[in-house]
Amino acid sequence: TYPLRRLYSTATGSPRAAEIRDVVHLPRRITPKYREPPMTTSGLLSLQWPTPPRNILLMPKLGSPQAIRSTIDFAKHLQSTYPDLNLIFEPRVAQMVHEGVNFPIYTCDPSLFPDKIDMITTLGGDGTILRAASHFSMYSSVPPILAFNFGTIGFLAEWKFEEYKRAWREAYMSGSGVPVRDLLTPHTRVASGEKSDEPDHDTASGWHSSPGKSMGPSRAAKILLRHRLKVGVYDPNGENINSQLSPTTRSQAHLPASSPEEDTNTTPGSRKTVPPAIHALNEILIHRGPNPHLAIIDIYLNNRFLTEAVADGILLSSPTGSTAYSLSAGGSIVHPLVKSLLITPICPRSLSFRPLVLPLSTKVTLRVSNKNRDGELEVSIDGKRSTSVPVGTEIRVEGENVGETSDGSWRGGVPCVICGPGKGDTTDFDDDGWVGGLNGLLMFNYPIGRG
Amino acid sequence: TYPLRRLYSTATGSPRAAEIRDVVHLPRRITPKYREPPMTTSGLLSLQWPTPPRNILLMPKLGSPQAIRSTIDFAKHLQSTYPDLNLIFEPRVAQMVHEGVNFPIYTCDPSLFPDKIDMITTLGGDGTILRAASHFSMYSSVPPILAFNFGTIGFLAEWKFEEYKRAWREAYMSGSGVPVRDLLTPHTRVASGEKSDEPDHDTASGWHSSPGKSMGPSRAAKILLRHRLKVGVYDPNGENINSQLSPTTRSQAHLPASSPEEDTNTTPGSRKTVPPAIHALNEILIHRGPNPHLAIIDIYLNNRFLTEAVADGILLSSPTGSTAYSLSAGGSIVHPLVKSLLITPICPRSLSFRPLVLPLSTKVTLRVSNKNRDGELEVSIDGKRSTSVPVGTEIRVEGENVGETSDGSWRGGVPCVICGPGKGDTTDFDDDGWVGGLNGLLMFNYPIGRG
Amino acid sequence: TYPLRRLYSTATGSPRAAEIRDVVHLPRRITPKYREPPMTTSGLLSLQWPTPPRNILLMPKLGSPQAIRSTIDFAKHLQSTYPDLNLIFEPRVAQMVHEGVNFPIYTCDPSLFPDKIDMITTLGGDGTILRAASHFSMYSSVPPILAFNFGTIGFLAEWKFEEYKRAWREAYMSGSGVPVRDLLTPHTRVASGEKSDEPDHDTASGWHSSPGKSMGPSRAAKILLRHRLKVGVYDPNGENINSQLSPTTRSQAHLPASSPEEDTNTTPGSRKTVPPAIHALNEILIHRGPNPHLAIIDIYLNNRFLTEAVADGILLSSPTGSTAYSLSAGGSIVHPLVKSLLITPICPRSLSFRPLVLPLSTKVTLRVSNKNRDGELEVSIDGKRSTSVPVGTEIRVEGENVGETSDGSWRGGVPCVICGPGKGDTTDFDDDGWVGGLNGLLMFNYPIGRG
Amino acid sequence: TYPLRRLYSTATGSPRAAEIRDVVHLPRRITPKYREPPMTTSGLLSLQWPTPPRNILLMPKLGSPQAIRSTIDFAKHLQSTYPDLNLIFEPRVAQMVHEGVNFPIYTCDPSLFPDKIDMITTLGGDGTILRAASHFSMYSSVPPILAFNFGTIGFLAEWKFEEYKRAWREAYMSGSGVPVRDLLTPHTRVASGEKSDEPDHDTASGWHSSPGKSMGPSRAAKILLRHRLKVGVYDPNGENINSQLSPTTRSQAHLPASSPEEDTNTTPGSRKTVPPAIHALNEILIHRGPNPHLAIIDIYLNNRFLTEAVADGILLSSPTGSTAYSLSAGGSIVHPLVKSLLITPICPRSLSFRPLVLPLSTKVTLRVSNKNRDGELEVSIDGKRSTSVPVGTEIRVEGENVGETSDGSWRGGVPCVICGPGKGDTTDFDDDGWVGGLNGLLMFNYPIGRG
Ligand SMILES: NC(=O)C1=CN([C@@H]2O[C@H](COP(=O)(O)OP(=O)(O)OC[C@H]3O[C@@H](n4cnc5c(N)ncnc54)[C@H](O)[C@@H]3O)[C@@H](O)[C@H]2O)C=CC1
Ligand SMILES: NC(=O)C1=CN([C@@H]2O[C@H](COP(=O)(O)OP(=O)(O)OC[C@H]3O[C@@H](n4cnc5c(N)ncnc54)[C@H](O)[C@@H]3O)[C@@H](O)[C@H]2O)C=CC1
Ligand SMILES: NC(=O)C1=CN([C@@H]2O[C@H](COP(=O)(O)OP(=O)(O)OC[C@H]3O[C@@H](n4cnc5c(N)ncnc54)[C@H](O)[C@@H]3O)[C@@H](O)[C@H]2O)C=CC1
Ligand SMILES: NC(=O)C1=CN([C@@H]2O[C@H](COP(=O)(O)OP(=O)(O)OC[C@H]3O[C@@H](n4cnc5c(N)ncnc54)[C@H](O)[C@@H]3O)[C@@H](O)[C@H]2O)C=CC1
Repeated sequence: TYPLRRLYSTATGSPRAAEIRDVVHLPRRITPKYREPPMTTSGLLSLQWPTPPRNILLMPKLGSPQAIRSTIDFAKHLQSTYPDLNLIFEPRVAQMVHEGVNFPIYTCDPSLFPDKIDMITTLGGDGTILRAASHFSMYSSVPPILAFNFGTIGFLAEWKFEEYKRAWREAYMSGSGVPVRDLLTPHTRVASGEKSDEPDHDTASGWHSSPGKSMGPSRAAKILLRHRLKVGVYDPNGENINSQLSPTTRSQAHLPASSPEEDTNTTPGSRKTVPPAIHALNEILIHRGPNPHLAIIDIYLNNRFLTEAVADGILLSSPTGSTAYSLSAGGSIVHPLVKSLLITPICPRSLSFRPLVLPLSTKVTLRVSNKNRDGELEVSIDGKRSTSVPVGTEIRVEGENVGETSDGSWRGGVPCVICGPGKGDTTDFDDDGWVGGLNGLLMFNYPIGRG
Repeated sequence: TYPLRRLYSTATGSPRAAEIRDVVHLPRRITPKYREPPMTTSGLLSLQWPTPPRNILLMPKLGSPQAIRSTIDFAKHLQSTYPDLNLIFEPRVAQMVHEGVNFPIYTCDPSLFPDKIDMITTLGGDGTILRAASHFSMYSSVPPILAFNFGTIGFLAEWKFEEYKRAWREAYMSGSGVPVRDLLTPHTRVASGEKSDEPDHDTASGWHSSPGKSMGPSRAAKILLRHRLKVGVYDPNGENINSQLSPTTRSQAHLPASSPEEDTNTTPGSRKTVPPAIHALNEILIHRGPNPHLAIIDIYLNNRFLTEAVADGILLSSPTGSTAYSLSAGGSIVHPLVKSLLITPICPRSLSFRPLVLPLSTKVTLRVSNKNRDGELEVSIDGKRSTSVPVGTEIRVEGENVGETSDGSWRGGVPCVICGPGKGDTTDFDDDGWVGGLNGLLMFNYPIGRG
Repeated sequence: TYPLRRLYSTATGSPRAAEIRDVVHLPRRITPKYREPPMTTSGLLSLQWPTPPRNILLMPKLGSPQAIRSTIDFAKHLQSTYPDLNLIFEPRVAQMVHEGVNFPIYTCDPSLFPDKIDMITTLGGDGTILRAASHFSMYSSVPPILAFNFGTIGFLAEWKFEEYKRAWREAYMSGSGVPVRDLLTPHTRVASGEKSDEPDHDTASGWHSSPGKSMGPSRAAKILLRHRLKVGVYDPNGENINSQLSPTTRSQAHLPASSPEEDTNTTPGSRKTVPPAIHALNEILIHRGPNPHLAIIDIYLNNRFLTEAVADGILLSSPTGSTAYSLSAGGSIVHPLVKSLLITPICPRSLSFRPLVLPLSTKVTLRVSNKNRDGELEVSIDGKRSTSVPVGTEIRVEGENVGETSDGSWRGGVPCVICGPGKGDTTDFDDDGWVGGLNGLLMFNYPIGRG
Repeated sequence: TYPLRRLYSTATGSPRAAEIRDVVHLPRRITPKYREPPMTTSGLLSLQWPTPPRNILLMPKLGSPQAIRSTIDFAKHLQSTYPDLNLIFEPRVAQMVHEGVNFPIYTCDPSLFPDKIDMITTLGGDGTILRAASHFSMYSSVPPILAFNFGTIGFLAEWKFEEYKRAWREAYMSGSGVPVRDLLTPHTRVASGEKSDEPDHDTASGWHSSPGKSMGPSRAAKILLRHRLKVGVYDPNGENINSQLSPTTRSQAHLPASSPEEDTNTTPGSRKTVPPAIHALNEILIHRGPNPHLAIIDIYLNNRFLTEAVADGILLSSPTGSTAYSLSAGGSIVHPLVKSLLITPICPRSLSFRPLVLPLSTKVTLRVSNKNRDGELEVSIDGKRSTSVPVGTEIRVEGENVGETSDGSWRGGVPCVICGPGKGDTTDFDDDGWVGGLNGLLMFNYPIGRG
């Protein structure tokens, strides 16, 4: 059990309810299924819970008192309306939250999250989603993420916090088959009762028992499965050094240096265990860092030499990452469902290094060339982990495999609950919200004065 | 039968062999299958002829005497080594070729090609391949193209003409199961005999009868199936006006104004036949043309308004087209196997119109805005067909479907025979030649002086 | 005298005042001086009229009824407040305006404008300013332009039409030495009187007689002198064919095919007169036009071969033009006072053709390469004049010389009256309004969502 | 006197000649004049020595044994042919060189260079020139630089080392009026004598005494005067902290933390001395450095707020710097004689931050916004000096003034000896070598495959 136990009471007989309990006592994680809805070509999936999710990770933006306050409001709402839920927080956050609530909350070392968390809600911006994903970066199965943007807006975090009750319910009930009453005008029914738009208590705690009332998969929450990139960093002797990628900020300081995953594998002809791959949601970056000179990086595609890049750095981005750093570096905007891997140079010392969009299955290797004068370059993943690496280091990257495994469970990708059109009784699986984000957030093709 | 019959003798008793015959008498087309080779993730397919191809279209670059001369050499080689082949040429080309050969050749109106041609070889550059593809732009099934670059080099036309004997044989024998002797060092066996590296005469004419000697699919020619875009142009009343897209040059003047295809379909609730879609291999362009003012175009994605583009023009490109016009306009380089559709603006009057890479299945509509001052814009396809269109015109585009149909035949895409690594006895399905093209042709990341 | 005389009465005894008179009877043009104000490094000049301007050209945007209406309002205001002014219009405009006013107005063939016009006001957008400048494109001296933007906004046309009274007065009085009462709060003095902020009638008509009240040059209108490019187009025999550059639109149809200017010069060793250079305010463009193939253009700098451009076209832009077509083609934004000439390619078929910024004095030659397949390319100037040119044609361009000539008169550039900060009693010569235009019109660095 | 005196013998009676002497004993610096040659518009100047230069700084590329060896060869040549010269080296270099030569050489703390050095020769690449310039970055007068490229090629270092004898002589004799015999074919006169192409000994040592033989300024070495940017870094309290900009590499470790210059000035109303400005030859960079988050920087032009940049960093470049970092970041290529200052963003998180080209006289201020999460950004100059700065820091930049001062001496810019066309008897002042550099080094518009 987690050392926090010593800090916070876990005694069941505690007079004050707002204790911080250890996640270790909670049941194991429930994983949902993702179905392709009939009659749609959008590529969005529908979320199907086999039984109601119970262990919920709540992640506010760090350093934002307002996000903490809203997280507390949200937690109170969940606790009162869905009393069977277990609300889980990262250790630093748990400390901030538990004083604001009078019911027990849970925490543990984030390395235990992959075993326990059924669903994640973030209250912040894109950075908070990236932080959430980074807790699962060494695992092939990431829980669905319901992301509220907060104060600032975000490209990945689409839901407005004001919609939190409806949004939560949609994600929570998804696939349950429980009828959902009109979600758009709850307050017209009971003017001031906070619970008016919520399911009955007993239904909420066991919606799986009412299959007769099913409204079909079209009522399910829409999932955009975001592709990730698998990364392995190898030292000049060919040893995997993924474990050296350490958190870039204090906020990530609890991240395990390395953690074993079920799919840890053994290299052929050796007994050594290969550390698990790290998965990037946005990108892998190799950069000159504080070094004043140009970085020199050899790039290989499927083990064929492509080019020697002389640049500030090289980005290998997922389609999701195409609107992040890659965009700033001049890359195209790639829809998240285009199965691709982007190579975008940062300040290349060449007039002719155009960004590349490759099949997601391409194996890309970046090698720190021996020509680098100052010896060390910076590697980082989603801006969340980083390390310095010497000449001869190789970064091997390829798209993560995604889909159902032979045992019927789902592997791969980051499932994000997409904001529906809010029409109430129907969910439009053709709208993935991407066009809205281009125009509303990226100010795509913002018109200029005309005469 | 084709009017050329009147120009050229088709009498079987003609004393001079070099007559021009009408393609109409040739047998119907043979269509190959395309198989995914086991153990490869490259996405390349293997070419599988059920029976040997017979009707071969030979297309030299137009206006190049040297290309004509080499086409004649190539024709002579085919005629002497594979005497069962029927060599077909476009009418204008047939006239130029038939004086150089002393055996019968074939021609017809290009609108008959889709019924007859088993395989195409081009001798020119990328423009010649585009011309070849344009003969099939209204059909869902395009014969395999074996493309020799010539004089100038090309990105799509990869084979060096010097390799023509080996290249042809590889494509012709592909999937036959006939053993192929060492292809790399033929001249070591018989120093000077031109035919030394050719199959025995009787084998060549009936390779399908020797299944016992099969060397398996790994010996087959590699096929890169290039995606096309389906285009429908609609006038302000919603009528399809594809037939107005006429050839841009004299060389294309034989192209049918419109031609019915099997998949001609009927709009629901009407009796009207919709003209067949036109397929673009590189791109659809809408442009201000000779008009001095900016074009104004509304863009919709899956029927949702994306943006009003104010620009010289808009390109909708296939991944193949990403290295053509789109590249010049600032688009990213997209690997041909990334299933995508590119929107690249040409000289947009906006600082923030970044090129987009969308799923190939996206339905894109370009609408000529009523705001266009001068009323008419230019639409063109692969630089080969074009027309002027008034305000209110809509161009509807989406990726062509590709794959096996229920009856086992193949539909969609332009199958291009890819140059192998030339290792002799094995064909490497992992190498699609793309990296070579980037470096050798596009001068990708060409190094600049360093100090 | 101009043929319009026959259409419209010019009889002085006409009972109805709204006749259209011929400009030929008006006095010759008055040219102002441009002074560098002390204590400023902005590069802006101050406008100094030796005597009040009298012959004013009023140019509304064509095709805009609203612009015509406002032009009539403006004309009435000028007529009633500054009765000594002669209001001049282009022929087509004169016809539209004279029905709205009951006083005489003037017109003539625009080729006479350079002899007569003291000052220009435009009511439209950037296109209207370009039209104004094109009337003077064969002359080295352009009258000051006071440009109101209208309905739509413009980068060059900075003044809001609502400010027209104050703006006019500032430009008209500039350098007069007549005291100008508080311009910012006129309505506080006389709440509703339209004339309250105008000079006394007699002062206005003869301000040059009141030198004692001078407030010094700091009260003068600010002038941004925009650089132009001098263009000569030469056929393959070396003959100047500037006269073939004809108007692109009906609205310019009155432009002289060619017109002699005082600085017409004789080529050494010959008797032939060289037609006058044409001056571009934005850019010279050479483009493939309706031709579907890439244009091939050889570029020389100071008679040294720079490169062979294979592209849609090449732009040679002034710094003013850097925010026009060049911007759309990917060029940098260059401040109008940076003495430079820009070479910006349009869709170059090269990864490494970066836009160039050269000294304004560079002699650039564009030569239509013999390699052009289709023979003809399109040349155009400011989108206002254009012609087709065959292979071998040369376009020779260099920056126009600007400054005081030995006889004290000013030559070169397009003097634009810049909008002041409106602080009332002082004109800030440090503000050239450029930053405002970047942010307000070009949406420069428009912020995107952050999280 | 310099502490090295204690390390190396300075005794005049030393038996071994190869001692390292202190520069302090050498005569004060001689400064040349720069004349605009008649009949040229290139903007190049001609170098005019009043008396022969004597104190020569020789700077090899660091870390390159070959550059050291060539420096020794060059030093021997100078010593034997021009015995009056004093050969000066940076301390670390002096140690490496003195073992290879048997004559005295000089060294001192580089902070003394500005008082003593008449001319600089570099043997390396662009980085070596930047190092040379950095020794003078706090001074307004930089000696002429004769730069040999070496091994690698460089954009700024144009001379091939093989040309060193002729190149040196051209620069040394420039403006002397001494007749220069055919420089191109010296070895045809005396086949093997190494000294054959050198001036007579006595002439060389006192060429200024032979004015009668003057061949006029056209024989003079061509000078490209490169513009610099003046930088002042101010802490949040408004105190100048230029002295904190410390060398980025060991090789620069001898650079003075701060050094007083003659033009040290006093802020109005205070007695405090303002440290001298630092001059950048390429650029000033402000960057996120090792910080994983976007930098936020407010930009002001002439004290007007332009924009809030959210980016990896911002470059303020000279036109010379336009082909350095700014080029990699997407900036245009600006000819070094266009008087301009470039603002180029590095990876801006905005679709609409286009690079800007401003008048060289623009006052640009970069302010580290309080919004920066991690507090510290990196400032660096020419990649040679850098420091971390907190929020509130201001970097104030403007173009350096250039020209003759009232006392006839020259101030400003970095005078670079430009490679002539090598025609022998005439120097072409119209060729500044820039076009050659674009094509030969930057691979500008490098052609790609065509078909
Ligand atoms: N110059 C640049 O553009 C830089 C970008 N980044 C990006 O920031 C990411 C880390 O994010 P934070 O921790 O929030 O750092 P941060 O505080 O530096 O913010 C990064 C910005 O990128 C946005 N963003 C992140 N992922 C995005 C996506 N997939 N699509 C659209 N916008 C996205 C965020 O909303 C935020 O505005 C990295 O993965 C990298 O992509 C990091 C450093 C520099
Ligand atoms: N500014 C530009 O870049 C322009 C490009 N084009 C392109 O030309 C194509 C028509 O080709 P041509 O008839 O030969 O016209 P063309 O004679 O104008 O040549 C076009 C050039 O593009 C190359 N090219 C064509 N398709 C390519 C591909 N998929 N990848 C790489 N390079 C490719 C050709 O080899 C040739 O160098 C159009 O489909 C369009 O993509 C057409 C006009 C202007
Ligand atoms: N793709 C493009 O960006 C194209 C641009 N043009 C530009 O249009 C100019 C002709 O203008 P119009 O007759 O009004 O044609 P137009 O009706 O096509 O409009 C051109 C647009 O450019 C703006 N513009 C013109 N000069 C400008 C300047 N110096 N700085 C900033 N914006 C400017 C105008 O306000 C207008 O929005 C040409 O000189 C050329 O620069 C012309 C054709 C295509
Ligand atoms: N991503 C990039 O392009 C980066 C560029 N730099 C540039 O490097 C400069 C420092 O040079 P080094 O000490 O040699 O560092 P370095 O060893 O990193 O090399 C910089 C490269 O830029 C070239 N270069 C320098 N100044 C140039 C100029 N004015 N025009 C054309 N090429 C030029 C050099 O020849 C060398 O190839 C900085 O002033 C900065 O401009 C520095 C870091 C990153």
